[in-house]
Amino acid sequence: MSLNETHDPALRSWVASAHAAGTDFPLQNLPFAVFRRQGSSEPWRGGVAIGDQIVDLAALAAAGVLSGEAAAAAQAGAQDKLNALMALGQPAWSALRLALSRALREGAAEQPRLQGCLVPQAQAEYDVPARIGDYTDFYTSVHHATNIGRLFRPDNPLLPNYKWVPIGYHGRASSIGVSGQSFRRPLGQTLPPGATQPSLAPSKRLDIELELGIFVGPGNAQGEPVPMEQAEDHVFGICLFNDWSARDIQAWEYQPLGPFLSKSFASTLSPWVVTLEALAPYRVPFERPEGDPQPLPYLDSDANRREGSLDIQLQVDLLTPRLREAGSAATICRTSYRHAYWTVAQMVAHHTVNGCNLQPGDLFGSGTLSGPTLDQAGALIELTAGGKQPLALANGETRTFLEDGDSVVIRGWCEKSGAARIGFGECVGTVLPALATGA
Amino acid sequence: MSLNETHDPALRSWVASAHAAGTDFPLQNLPFAVFRRQGSSEPWRGGVAIGDQIVDLAALAAAGVLSGEAAAAAQAGAQDKLNALMALGQPAWSALRLALSRALREGAAEQPRLQGCLVPQAQAEYDVPARIGDYTDFYTSVHHATNIGRLFRPDNPLLPNYKWVPIGYHGRASSIGVSGQSFRRPLGQTLPPGATQPSLAPSKRLDIELELGIFVGPGNAQGEPVPMEQAEDHVFGICLFNDWSARDIQAWEYQPLGPFLSKSFASTLSPWVVTLEALAPYRVPFERPEGDPQPLPYLDSDANRREGSLDIQLQVDLLTPRLREAGSAATICRTSYRHAYWTVAQMVAHHTVNGCNLQPGDLFGSGTLSGPTLDQAGALIELTAGGKQPLALANGETRTFLEDGDSVVIRGWCEKSGAARIGFGECVGTVLPALATGA
Repeated sequence: MSLNETHDPALRSWVASAHAAGTDFPLQNLPFAVFRRQGSSEPWRGGVAIGDQIVDLAALAAAGVLSGEAAAAAQAGAQDKLNALMALGQPAWSALRLALSRALREGAAEQPRLQGCLVPQAQAEYDVPARIGDYTDFYTSVHHATNIGRLFRPDNPLLPNYKWVPIGYHGRASSIGVSGQSFRRPLGQTLPPGATQPSLAPSKRLDIELELGIFVGPGNAQGEPVPMEQAEDHVFGICLFNDWSARDIQAWEYQPLGPFLSKSFASTLSPWVVTLEALAPYRVPFERPEGDPQPLPYLDSDANRREGSLDIQLQVDLLTPRLREAGSAATICRTSYRHAYWTVAQMVAHHTVNGCNLQPGDLFGSGTLSGPTLDQAGALIELTAGGKQPLALANGETRTFLEDGDSVVIRGWCEKSGAARIGFGECVGTVLPALATGA
Repeated sequence: MSLNETHDPALRSWVASAHAAGTDFPLQNLPFAVFRRQGSSEPWRGGVAIGDQIVDLAALAAAGVLSGEAAAAAQAGAQDKLNALMALGQPAWSALRLALSRALREGAAEQPRLQGCLVPQAQAEYDVPARIGDYTDFYTSVHHATNIGRLFRPDNPLLPNYKWVPIGYHGRASSIGVSGQSFRRPLGQTLPPGATQPSLAPSKRLDIELELGIFVGPGNAQGEPVPMEQAEDHVFGICLFNDWSARDIQAWEYQPLGPFLSKSFASTLSPWVVTLEALAPYRVPFERPEGDPQPLPYLDSDANRREGSLDIQLQVDLLTPRLREAGSAATICRTSYRHAYWTVAQMVAHHTVNGCNLQPGDLFGSGTLSGPTLDQAGALIELTAGGKQPLALANGETRTFLEDGDSVVIRGWCEKSGAARIGFGECVGTVLPALATGA
């Protein structure tokens, strides 16, 4: 995907906050969300972030500010979920992006009419951006797969299929919520160490999974695989994602058919979805370590080798109740998406090679995005060596797994000289105490 | 669930075909589907089977034949998917069933007006009955789990969690189709025997999975488990289901996160969904073999022990192209759902114990319903001992796994003296040749 006028770092907006230091949402970003005013009964509708404001796509469509393909895209984005906009495809998204980029620039003739379509982010609440038909979780970090494998099989951490197959599995769509989500610590069957029989109890090993969420745009017909060269045409954009996991439930249930209740109680998305077009300046080559096999032909393309990976920086902060009170957070992980072993295009090509049909609004999880070193690990089970080495927080507290009242904040952004900063906002979730159980 | 006047085997309908010998759809059944006239552009809508006819719920609602809760249920069922009807719950379904049972009886005053709402099944085509938000496949046959486990681990076929956990995993909803579905043999990565590197090729071990599909009715709120005593209130009904599987793809991909592309290319549902109320005469006790552990309290209830299982007889027929031409089919399996190790209520209670929210129209697969003896196995991998002992068909052909052009027909029914026969119709799917691949 090549750069165009919307990527020019010199662009300036008449929305002043788009130039605030460190803003996630300059004029070069323009990510999408579904929102309404907090506590209102307004209809949910799509919006585009600019600085600390939201361009209300329903108001924009009604005001008739845009024309042609951009207007049609704004109209599709005015609904309560973004599926219709996602279905339109890259040319429509691009037309809307270009039109908004121009209308939001300093001196734009549209400023007076567009001003009436702005809603302050401080007044907004958000919903899950799409009706997610199917959610697939991948496992694209070789470092995560190795770290986890080492806990189970010290001598042979990585399974023989890993470097050939972009491993994935189906996940639960109904329990995916949006940033701000609080959820009860799950109950589940576990076999405690030394026990001869399992019992039902609240999970004692509740964990995070630092992931990115990838929203599918136009789908493919059943029976028609998507080749690598067209794979990214089927991708709408990327957001932050926390796939909370109960490791003790997982350990007891996962054989032979994979994780189930250990993951299906809650997963949290960031509200803002950043388009692939906005991320174009941050593409990097997809590289395989010396000696590793090259991808099979159906997972390979020139474009993928040249610029298939994305340098998205990621950070996980932990807020214990005491840290929250003190107004500070403990950063427990920093890494980048560039370390992933499989790219977004490879996920699409692999997922469809058997003829499986993707649909607009389907979600892929990247899998836990642990980097090459242990402090870059995206899950507590890795950061604490399976719960054996507690993390020491700056205020003297320690954590192995999450405790009731803990919040986790994921942030993501792209930054380099010569390009505008592209941010993802944040993805926050909070653990509530488990239901009492007599079982 | 107790018997009521709708179950009386002596009831007679003014629809003569409801009394044809061996009909699946007598007056005591009244299952639901989504249909329209073949080749028409009519809207899809709900219908109820009676003999060889369909009561068109949209026509019924428009004609104002019913009143009160039954009329509201018919109206909900008039939409292009049954989700709204499923959401209404047991009292509404029961009211509609009772009203239809009375209106379709010999001598009913409603006959003249209802007659105009009938569409012959011979003129109908069907759609998937619900918008399936999430599809979960269980693994409730201990015989299937043991047979499959023996192929991988001869000395230790059954994993230690099996008799405690109703094992399940998330499946792919988008590729589920309705009876009559044809699908291409999937391509996929496999590691052929003796090969040092995997390759992409059409599956050589394409299999069936004889299952039942269970549709969820009203959902539960996230964080609120459904106790056993209320579990069946969340179940709309049951249909036939074939969860086609590519065993060679599965063997290479499934570790450590479970089956993915080996199952997501296609799954086939029967059009007719039989309600739990219609199945009430065929309830049987849920029993554990001597020496097996009793279910944990959250998976146990008096009602479940007394009548948690269902005696649904199942049959799988294979139609090779030559058999199809000869007008005969080879029956390759006969079994009953009564052999399942976990009940429908236990699936609901387990699925929600962690707080996972079910939604109207969600689908559970029972898992492959193999019975206690090998000729009762519901998958070719079991029937042929992993492909080593081909099935000999009566016309001299043999099969290990499915070949291009093969069709598989699943049938299901309940039958005993003193109760009306309750049938499920059939679930048919056909294998098309794979796409050519140069990879």
